[in-house]
Amino acid sequence: MEGKSSGPSCSGLNLVAHPRAKSKVWKYFGFDTDADGCILHWKRIYCRVCMSQIAYSGNTSNLSYHLEKNHPVEFSEFVKSNTDQMREAFATAFSRIKTEPTGTHVQQPSQDTNLRQNLNYENRRHNDLTIAVINFICEGLYPVSVVEEPTFKTLMSTVDPGYSPPSKSDLALKMLPQMYCRTRDMVFNELAGVLNCGVTTDLWQSQTQNRTYISLSMHSVNHNNATGFSMTNKCLKTFEVQDDNTAENITRAMYETFVEWGITHKVIGANTNGSVDIVKACSLLELSVEMPCLGHTVNRALDEALQLPRVDSFLGSCRKLVDHFREPTIYLLRERQKQHGLAQCPLITDRGRSWLATLAMLQRLKEQQVAVTATLIEGSSSHHFSFDGPDWTFLEGLIEVLQPFKVVANMFTSCRYPTISMVRPVLHMLLNTTLKVNEGDLKEIGMAKEVIAKVLSSTYSQNTQLSQEISTFLNIATFLDPRYKKLPFLSTQERSKVESNIVEEAKAILEKQIGERPPCVEDFSVVSDEPPSKRPHRESAGSATQENPLAAIFCQSDADQSQEELHAQVVEELSNYKSQRVLGLNEDPLLWWSSHALLFPTLPKVLQKYWCVPATSVPCHRLLSSSGTVLCGKRNRIAPALVDHQVFLYENSRSYYEPEPCEDDLDNVWEGNCSLGPPVE
Amino acid sequence: MEGKSSGPSCSGLNLVAHPRAKSKVWKYFGFDTDADGCILHWKRIYCRVCMSQIAYSGNTSNLSYHLEKNHPVEFSEFVKSNTDQMREAFATAFSRIKTEPTGTHVQQPSQDTNLRQNLNYENRRHNDLTIAVINFICEGLYPVSVVEEPTFKTLMSTVDPGYSPPSKSDLALKMLPQMYCRTRDMVFNELAGVLNCGVTTDLWQSQTQNRTYISLSMHSVNHNNATGFSMTNKCLKTFEVQDDNTAENITRAMYETFVEWGITHKVIGANTNGSVDIVKACSLLELSVEMPCLGHTVNRALDEALQLPRVDSFLGSCRKLVDHFREPTIYLLRERQKQHGLAQCPLITDRGRSWLATLAMLQRLKEQQVAVTATLIEGSSSHHFSFDGPDWTFLEGLIEVLQPFKVVANMFTSCRYPTISMVRPVLHMLLNTTLKVNEGDLKEIGMAKEVIAKVLSSTYSQNTQLSQEISTFLNIATFLDPRYKKLPFLSTQERSKVESNIVEEAKAILEKQIGERPPCVEDFSVVSDEPPSKRPHRESAGSATQENPLAAIFCQSDADQSQEELHAQVVEELSNYKSQRVLGLNEDPLLWWSSHALLFPTLPKVLQKYWCVPATSVPCHRLLSSSGTVLCGKRNRIAPALVDHQVFLYENSRSYYEPEPCEDDLDNVWEGNCSLGPPVE
Repeated sequence: MEGKSSGPSCSGLNLVAHPRAKSKVWKYFGFDTDADGCILHWKRIYCRVCMSQIAYSGNTSNLSYHLEKNHPVEFSEFVKSNTDQMREAFATAFSRIKTEPTGTHVQQPSQDTNLRQNLNYENRRHNDLTIAVINFICEGLYPVSVVEEPTFKTLMSTVDPGYSPPSKSDLALKMLPQMYCRTRDMVFNELAGVLNCGVTTDLWQSQTQNRTYISLSMHSVNHNNATGFSMTNKCLKTFEVQDDNTAENITRAMYETFVEWGITHKVIGANTNGSVDIVKACSLLELSVEMPCLGHTVNRALDEALQLPRVDSFLGSCRKLVDHFREPTIYLLRERQKQHGLAQCPLITDRGRSWLATLAMLQRLKEQQVAVTATLIEGSSSHHFSFDGPDWTFLEGLIEVLQPFKVVANMFTSCRYPTISMVRPVLHMLLNTTLKVNEGDLKEIGMAKEVIAKVLSSTYSQNTQLSQEISTFLNIATFLDPRYKKLPFLSTQERSKVESNIVEEAKAILEKQIGERPPCVEDFSVVSDEPPSKRPHRESAGSATQENPLAAIFCQSDADQSQEELHAQVVEELSNYKSQRVLGLNEDPLLWWSSHALLFPTLPKVLQKYWCVPATSVPCHRLLSSSGTVLCGKRNRIAPALVDHQVFLYENSRSYYEPEPCEDDLDNVWEGNCSLGPPVE
Repeated sequence: MEGKSSGPSCSGLNLVAHPRAKSKVWKYFGFDTDADGCILHWKRIYCRVCMSQIAYSGNTSNLSYHLEKNHPVEFSEFVKSNTDQMREAFATAFSRIKTEPTGTHVQQPSQDTNLRQNLNYENRRHNDLTIAVINFICEGLYPVSVVEEPTFKTLMSTVDPGYSPPSKSDLALKMLPQMYCRTRDMVFNELAGVLNCGVTTDLWQSQTQNRTYISLSMHSVNHNNATGFSMTNKCLKTFEVQDDNTAENITRAMYETFVEWGITHKVIGANTNGSVDIVKACSLLELSVEMPCLGHTVNRALDEALQLPRVDSFLGSCRKLVDHFREPTIYLLRERQKQHGLAQCPLITDRGRSWLATLAMLQRLKEQQVAVTATLIEGSSSHHFSFDGPDWTFLEGLIEVLQPFKVVANMFTSCRYPTISMVRPVLHMLLNTTLKVNEGDLKEIGMAKEVIAKVLSSTYSQNTQLSQEISTFLNIATFLDPRYKKLPFLSTQERSKVESNIVEEAKAILEKQIGERPPCVEDFSVVSDEPPSKRPHRESAGSATQENPLAAIFCQSDADQSQEELHAQVVEELSNYKSQRVLGLNEDPLLWWSSHALLFPTLPKVLQKYWCVPATSVPCHRLLSSSGTVLCGKRNRIAPALVDHQVFLYENSRSYYEPEPCEDDLDNVWEGNCSLGPPVE
């Protein structure tokens, strides 16, 4: 891709920037030209710093790569100018939006100011409605074509007969980009103060459009003197996944997004759904932490268990049993429910759904066991069903395996603070209680437990090197949670390993602080970029000695001494942290850290680094409830040309924790209750 | 399934109807009971007429089958009572809706009438808004959960701060069923006057819900003295397709729908997408005409041709070429476009789309050939593309093959009258001009033509018996179109065969009229139920002779004479039809028939029978434009419990010919034009 040009062109090059260059990176690169100033090769450019020839393929990401790798001074200059340029542009766009009337129908404002005043009320009403329509579409993830649907037009004209909503093309070409710019500006401002962040990739498909996308989001723990610690979760970009060179294209798209948002050096790690290409992209980007997604892992583990032949065929019988209790047998079931004082609700099936739906089916059957059994016996001469003792035992066994996972799912989906610290304790609990094979277990249940345990432990702990890093990362994240700091599932030796990791991490932070600015300034902005497992040990005396040759003579003992002081300071802070009250399991750890920030000058910085990587690659509720289905239905309708902007606006206008409104509850209605009038049957 | 009971229970049965019987069919069947009156077997019932034992599986369709097959008198009695019952129920539901306030928030109307009057304006506004919201959801195919989306709530409160839309559950359980009943009543009324109808099945999938559905629609040509002939197209039912016993379940669901809507004896034929299970269901239902779907057939034929290895790899090069013309090369292309005075628009790709998208890609390339070629030559040293003479020839060849299909697609989608008469002429034109392999054709183009021709002709004409019927049916339908009545693509012999078929058909209609009522009454309500190919020849003297034993002596010569008169009358009518002006190809045939109805007492009845079977299984625009994609996205979001009602309301609230608003035009915008502000690159 890159190398010293071997031809005679190295000297005497007549370099010009790209004629349509928008990026300031072109300051450092150029195309060679002939005597007339015409570009000789569109696919070859030269670095103005080192005169290397570099392949050019139409985007500037490898140019940034080159600068970053070989010319750090120029690279930092470029990053700075780039950021300034963006800020400037955002500011311009923002002021334009503010001054322009938002409703596009108010074109060419009348020059007669009297008339203008008269129109004021009407205009304001018009603008308010237009803004509401734009928000409805942007924040509700509706296709812009909604405004051209006759029923939407009717709705709006009922609302206000004089009002006509903006046109589809105005929305797509003007208002939506404006909203995008405005939101991008706000997100950009929020990101400016971020120290470290984790990124997540949501790989999704628009089945109706036959396209695959990745939505890239960032996450960070921020500190504010007034409000304490809080999470920031922002969607940055949605890009289409091409079929060719998938991993490479994902790498490029992710890198460009990092550069665009100025987070290249802030990204600590990623949480992905584990697809091969994305994993490869993360390693090409040298993201040091690649956290598996707990939601995807749990779903995969349980799906595998439920597909074991014996389990699968048993679930088949359960589904048949549920199907059997339709008209007219449903009538008998209702009678029996009344007779036994059971809840008056239908059986439910799980066809084509998740393990949560399967669990719901099994639990409903169990609740209604008496009524189901009585009805089955009563009608035994007219059907071939047998669902007796051993079946009910199997059913109970399955519920016992699945139920704790539902509890875990609820814990994660209801959480409003980072969940990374919960991963290790939850895995330990599941592997050592729920999934422990007991003597009394049915053989099939034992096998199911083993399958689930295998998936969980192989994902999080077995695979040598990589998993060792994940494991260390999770242990540190867990220790920093005042609810879990006792780490009861680790040996004494392992615990002290975690503590010494944290001490190393904290010392590195303090050293950087001392090296860069006067101490005692309360500030959360300096932190090392890599987890302890990767950081080389030479850091301690590093740059100071190299800058002044006399430092080796005069500063050595000082350095040693400050090393000792640092160590003592950190160890004391750690010991102080350990001596604090252990938080209740349902208390909010971020709240605790917010109220204890003054006591701990260093540890929260470690926290910010370790807690910015989420436990799941998309918000839990999308993996573990039908929220995901609703979102999928909405995303399916968006035009490819607008996907990036619309998903950005949708995601950033709502809370990360807010599930989509869904219609699952309608499944629980007795069949036929939804229809008035006389069914013929 | 059915047979005389072999046990001793045949005599002395103590039959009771189903305890929750809603269908009047239970008048003719019952369960056996023991001494206490308890039902003995829930899966076995007995016919009260013949005492046969019949298997019962929870629905009454096989009971109707039994009656229809064995006890025609009771069956017709049942059908009549059933229809009356439905009408009654609809009337009740309708009056209830009329008197109840539609807004559910107006609960328990105040008893103070003064206060009531004061509230009147507010109530009316509230009701108007609620009705608009209900219509937006029903007619726009939105999930009911829309009303709980924060952005929709915000939109409505901007509209009117005092207004709160109905709740999701009110919508699902109350308003939607009311709307359904009201619409069902109207549809039912429209169907009452229908003589013959065709049915179509739309097989579709909710990918997000992982379910497969069939929406069943009916189509008929109706006559009204004031307005003439017009088409009725109504969606009747959407049911889920189960994985087990698929064909049987589809059969049952279709049959039940026929009975529910009282069209069992009116269905002439079906048009389906050709899936095995639906085809089987149609033959189980003994639908005498099973028309292939022209849209699906064309799409399948062209897909096969475009997947030929040589064609596929050539299209791959075209896509690469289009991809190549992105930043920065797009800039060069634009320059060249200006220079050569070409349209300023981007190249377009067809990834994951239909043959229409492929054609659009090829046509755009062709339009921009000069600019593309110039740009390629200019940058030849920096890329490995070659796209030269032979490639452009191949491209033109493909356009020549595809373009006529686009013309056909436009003909069908723009048509507002039945298209069945166009099928035969269009197929002839395609097979004999477009798809004729010429000497100058590239080998690949020749192969593509052959593949397409093979699919078209094998679907419509080769398969022996079945296709013979289809072919006869299409010829008659075409002859009845005053634009195509010359049938130039048939031999003289074939043409007279068509005419004699029509004479037979018309005579059968006249005979029935004479047999059932005094002549001279202008009426379009009697027609034979089967096409001529299936109808047995004994019909002519049929029922009249059997009813009165003296008829054999006294009426025979009369019958012969009337036969001759009938024949003469029909032949004259036919000759009159042939002598009329041939319509222009773009004139509306239904309009012509409407204005000539008085001249032709019999032929329009044949028309009504042959033109009620549509040429495609779903409206053309859904198969041949992106309308289908939009619909698919909308249907994906509907809760399974509401799919039947919501699809029914959606389909029946819009014109059959009205395409969904779509966003295809956004693809044509220059990349990057959709974003304001400075992209970093």
